Amino acid sequence: MTAGICLIGAGRIGAIHAENIAAAPGARLLYVVDASPAAAEDLAARYAAQVADLERALADPAVQAVLIASSTDTHVALMRAASAAGKAVFCEKPLDLDLARARECLGELESAGTLLALGFNRRFDPDFNALWQRVQAGDIGEIEMVTITSRDPGPPPLAYLQRSGGLFMDMMIHDFDMARWLLGEDPSSLYATASSLVDPAIAEIGDVDSALVTLKTPGGKLCQISNSRRASYGYDQRIEVHGSRGMLRAENRSASQVECFRAGAVERDPPLDFFLERYAQAYRIELDAFLTALAGQSAQLVTGSDALKAQVLAAAAARSCAGNCAVAPDYLGIEHA
Amino acid sequence: MTAGICLIGAGRIGAIHAENIAAAPGARLLYVVDASPAAAEDLAARYAAQVADLERALADPAVQAVLIASSTDTHVALMRAASAAGKAVFCEKPLDLDLARARECLGELESAGTLLALGFNRRFDPDFNALWQRVQAGDIGEIEMVTITSRDPGPPPLAYLQRSGGLFMDMMIHDFDMARWLLGEDPSSLYATASSLVDPAIAEIGDVDSALVTLKTPGGKLCQISNSRRASYGYDQRIEVHGSRGMLRAENRSASQVECFRAGAVERDPPLDFFLERYAQAYRIELDAFLTALAGQSAQLVTGSDALKAQVLAAAAARSCAGNCAVAPDYLGIEHA
Amino acid sequence: MTAGICLIGAGRIGAIHAENIAAAPGARLLYVVDASPAAAEDLAARYAAQVADLERALADPAVQAVLIASSTDTHVALMRAASAAGKAVFCEKPLDLDLARARECLGELESAGTLLALGFNRRFDPDFNALWQRVQAGDIGEIEMVTITSRDPGPPPLAYLQRSGGLFMDMMIHDFDMARWLLGEDPSSLYATASSLVDPAIAEIGDVDSALVTLKTPGGKLCQISNSRRASYGYDQRIEVHGSRGMLRAENRSASQVECFRAGAVERDPPLDFFLERYAQAYRIELDAFLTALAGQSAQLVTGSDALKAQVLAAAAARSCAGNCAVAPDYLGIEHA
Amino acid sequence: MTAGICLIGAGRIGAIHAENIAAAPGARLLYVVDASPAAAEDLAARYAAQVADLERALADPAVQAVLIASSTDTHVALMRAASAAGKAVFCEKPLDLDLARARECLGELESAGTLLALGFNRRFDPDFNALWQRVQAGDIGEIEMVTITSRDPGPPPLAYLQRSGGLFMDMMIHDFDMARWLLGEDPSSLYATASSLVDPAIAEIGDVDSALVTLKTPGGKLCQISNSRRASYGYDQRIEVHGSRGMLRAENRSASQVECFRAGAVERDPPLDFFLERYAQAYRIELDAFLTALAGQSAQLVTGSDALKAQVLAAAAARSCAGNCAVAPDYLGIEHA
Repeated sequence: MTAGICLIGAGRIGAIHAENIAAAPGARLLYVVDASPAAAEDLAARYAAQVADLERALADPAVQAVLIASSTDTHVALMRAASAAGKAVFCEKPLDLDLARARECLGELESAGTLLALGFNRRFDPDFNALWQRVQAGDIGEIEMVTITSRDPGPPPLAYLQRSGGLFMDMMIHDFDMARWLLGEDPSSLYATASSLVDPAIAEIGDVDSALVTLKTPGGKLCQISNSRRASYGYDQRIEVHGSRGMLRAENRSASQVECFRAGAVERDPPLDFFLERYAQAYRIELDAFLTALAGQSAQLVTGSDALKAQVLAAAAARSCAGNCAVAPDYLGIEHA
Repeated sequence: MTAGICLIGAGRIGAIHAENIAAAPGARLLYVVDASPAAAEDLAARYAAQVADLERALADPAVQAVLIASSTDTHVALMRAASAAGKAVFCEKPLDLDLARARECLGELESAGTLLALGFNRRFDPDFNALWQRVQAGDIGEIEMVTITSRDPGPPPLAYLQRSGGLFMDMMIHDFDMARWLLGEDPSSLYATASSLVDPAIAEIGDVDSALVTLKTPGGKLCQISNSRRASYGYDQRIEVHGSRGMLRAENRSASQVECFRAGAVERDPPLDFFLERYAQAYRIELDAFLTALAGQSAQLVTGSDALKAQVLAAAAARSCAGNCAVAPDYLGIEHA
Repeated sequence: MTAGICLIGAGRIGAIHAENIAAAPGARLLYVVDASPAAAEDLAARYAAQVADLERALADPAVQAVLIASSTDTHVALMRAASAAGKAVFCEKPLDLDLARARECLGELESAGTLLALGFNRRFDPDFNALWQRVQAGDIGEIEMVTITSRDPGPPPLAYLQRSGGLFMDMMIHDFDMARWLLGEDPSSLYATASSLVDPAIAEIGDVDSALVTLKTPGGKLCQISNSRRASYGYDQRIEVHGSRGMLRAENRSASQVECFRAGAVERDPPLDFFLERYAQAYRIELDAFLTALAGQSAQLVTGSDALKAQVLAAAAARSCAGNCAVAPDYLGIEHA
Repeated sequence: MTAGICLIGAGRIGAIHAENIAAAPGARLLYVVDASPAAAEDLAARYAAQVADLERALADPAVQAVLIASSTDTHVALMRAASAAGKAVFCEKPLDLDLARARECLGELESAGTLLALGFNRRFDPDFNALWQRVQAGDIGEIEMVTITSRDPGPPPLAYLQRSGGLFMDMMIHDFDMARWLLGEDPSSLYATASSLVDPAIAEIGDVDSALVTLKTPGGKLCQISNSRRASYGYDQRIEVHGSRGMLRAENRSASQVECFRAGAVERDPPLDFFLERYAQAYRIELDAFLTALAGQSAQLVTGSDALKAQVLAAAAARSCAGNCAVAPDYLGIEHA
């Protein structure tokens, strides 16, 4: 059975999802919805889908799920509309910059019994997933320390940064999700510090471009996260987990396995360029998991609570950074992992 | 413009090509031809193609190219038929176990002006291709020595081996093509020696399972090839090129970049399992190159001469092995690279 | 000209120094002084040195330098005595657990014009030193982030821990020195958090066994340090420096370069066991630097100020950890780097 | 008990041995003998040894062993003299360029019961030795193929090459020893081919600078050896052993473990420069093994038969290369391994 999908958002991330939906044996891209008709038309044409407004797409019973890849400020309204129409929802992160609003929306979807998955794609990266599987299998005993490194090749445009919610909410939110996933516990203490080293314009809009965060769980597990908006050598995404019986680490992938030995140095290829290359497989596997759940089978999804807790940590980081003191994240009463 | 393709052969290799044709934006799988109607039906159904006999498929003007992935003994007749019908031809290796017959067929296709490409997929492997590009760019100066390692995880079924033409023709033929490609010269001397170490049954049918070959070109460049039908740790495909100003080497790819540090050892994943995994990308890029040429644009293809010369080297290896002495490959008057 | 050395302390570290003094072309081990006559006798005999009490050794004009490798509580008195006798001093870290006392002693030695070097051996590790040289050479541009990982294979005996001054003073002090050395600036903010995950007995004596520290300099450079008293896979000592134009990292060394490929995994040797193996070369090079300075030539030494500042950071870490809030290290008015 | 040693030959290799003898707890360098009194004087002075002529040194009962590191043409006479004087002998390779003469001399030493060890230092390299130990332990099952790569950074002076016996005898002889050691069988067939690619002057004196050799044992095990007199990236010494249950390989060592990530490439240090750096430890461990045997304890030594067989293979390689056909090495009736 093939699931009919309505894609909302025909931008860069929407285009990835459109391609993956088209290639997935179990799915069919029926509609593309976007504020820009030209963008919607262009993407729809590539995959023989129709352009429609939201109302029409949600009215079509062939649509089983809505995939939301539009701007953050539209997420809550779209999730509500899709849920009201009885559709399953896949939504890109974050839920909403307003935590209370995000939480309220999640409560409604839960009451309605709507299937919801959030787009934290890194959990589906084959390397990080393999690492996590081995942690679960007990290969390194009890987890003691997690180290997460995440560096972008360069900062996004200032216009984007101004609407992004800041480095902690826009960039480190992925690492907060990784941290919770790997620690298996919700951090009870968080310390953040940050600098503007890459571009003074980022400081001028009140944001930072380099940051370190330390997390501690009630069980005493420790985690350190480092973020930078600049890495001349490519997209740097690594995880290291230290346990009572060993250490697991996931290194970056490169374009080739070729090494060049010459006078003075042995050279190999740097890490893959950016998230489109690095997480191409992760996006596909993430979609597969959602389609599997949609078909009524068991699948590992990123839940609304997961997404909300990552945002809680991002908000706590901004607070800690401002006060230069550790803070206790306020989970708003969401049940613990 | 989309190229209509007729696929002949619905076996393991045919299935790879069918999937790649279906996914290629510039191609469409129109027909599947196979001696087994059930196999043809099964594959055709997966990609909305038709099952047909050869005559009917070749009669369709929408078919621009024939992709031959049937058993070796059918290659020559099929190439002739496709050429006579004015179709371009992509053919899996080898051309034919009878060198004279293969050569004659190539002459006919050349006279007819038929576009022909042979399926030596390793030239399109991203790692080997990146290595070759750097050799061409002069990154390591003049080539002096090439080392090619090629080990299968385990031997194929005996029934297959009995029809295969032997290890040199069936397996090392790929390495002979790599050698010529990297050396940039046709070897003028070849020495081969071999053993049966993996399975006595292989010796009983007159074949070998472990072999070493040494090549020397007129310019004095040297090349060593090693083959084994057994590698407990996966599919081992490596190349090393030593030049006057350095060395390039292409290592294997693994399923993940995860390392596990524990008492006694640091572990990482072994090489990818077999050619379907390792050369998945190579098959796609190889097809793209053929489609590019089909569209009248410039592309690096493996020519009939390339394929014939690889067979010439395989035949020479069998001869050298029997006499335990170096031999001069007989290129049958084919023009040199 | 050969420098006569008096070694104080015939324990594990003293024995390393004795062996290196004996092997150094420019030095001669004249005396071994130790509270335990048997230990002194044993070590002295191995290198044809004499056992003496401090007074007699310092009275010998052939003694040019005193190497102090005795317990921490004896350091200040010994440095004073050596300085008063006109000898140069090499002293193991830390200076003294009492910062004010340590500072006072340093002032006296400075007034006396005594040549003083502190035993922060990691600066002399060939890998860390090569990394530092490349940072100095500007290979990665301006420094933005430093990551230091330091894990012992297992905790020392409780009896040792009870006198050690705690993890920050005993173990992380080395990493504080590395941090200052690599950052090229004195941190102005420090946050520390820690856990007892390895052995409950360590918590019972009021110490921790797992800790994370975050440093920030006035220029906004960031540094994260992680320490653990347990690493099942060996002694884990790594540094990573991220700059505006690239990243440098120094990985661990292993006993061999042998890799074993087998079904399921590729294995290599884990990191070298402990500091005696890992820092064997560092101890030798450190001594050479001291001997070079002793001969009146230019050498990179670790100064009293360096040692004191590392202790200041260790003290700040303990304070931060207790309050779970960042603190400003109190450099006691010592001039900045 | 300390063994008194007489060193013959104060050149580059002699100097290495002198330093190691001086540093070994169980040995003392008593005499240095060299045709050049100045060279002998210089080396002797460094280690408080005496300069003597051979007669006087051999007459001293404190001399237990003679270490021969003089030019090849002196080896046989010196071994005879040392044996006649009742001394143990450690001799650098090769025994003598004349195989019959070498064999005769070995017979005499054997009859005299003289302890003899040959200087094939690579067996004592920690990496190669660790690899060999794992082969012996059965870690990769039955050995099937051995691959040995040996490349010098650059060719030695022509004057040296003219007296060296040619690449097979001077350079590849080490690899022949490695091959026998790892295969655990004496090769029964050998094929060699070679080129002059590095320097035309080498061809003019009738030698080659690039060579490939293939070995086969009676049990069907295969081995390939490659040699080059040029490697712009350093001294390249690698071994790979492929067995029925896996593969072991020993990679090169580098000066540091530092990696530099920058736009375009990740760089690390090339292999160590040359044999003095690469085999520094091997020379020390080799001497220790000899001293252990001298003290009457069990030790793995390289025997006269081992040395002779390596020469037999070198001679066979020259013969094979001349005829471009495989040859059967003539072991002169020496008992098989």
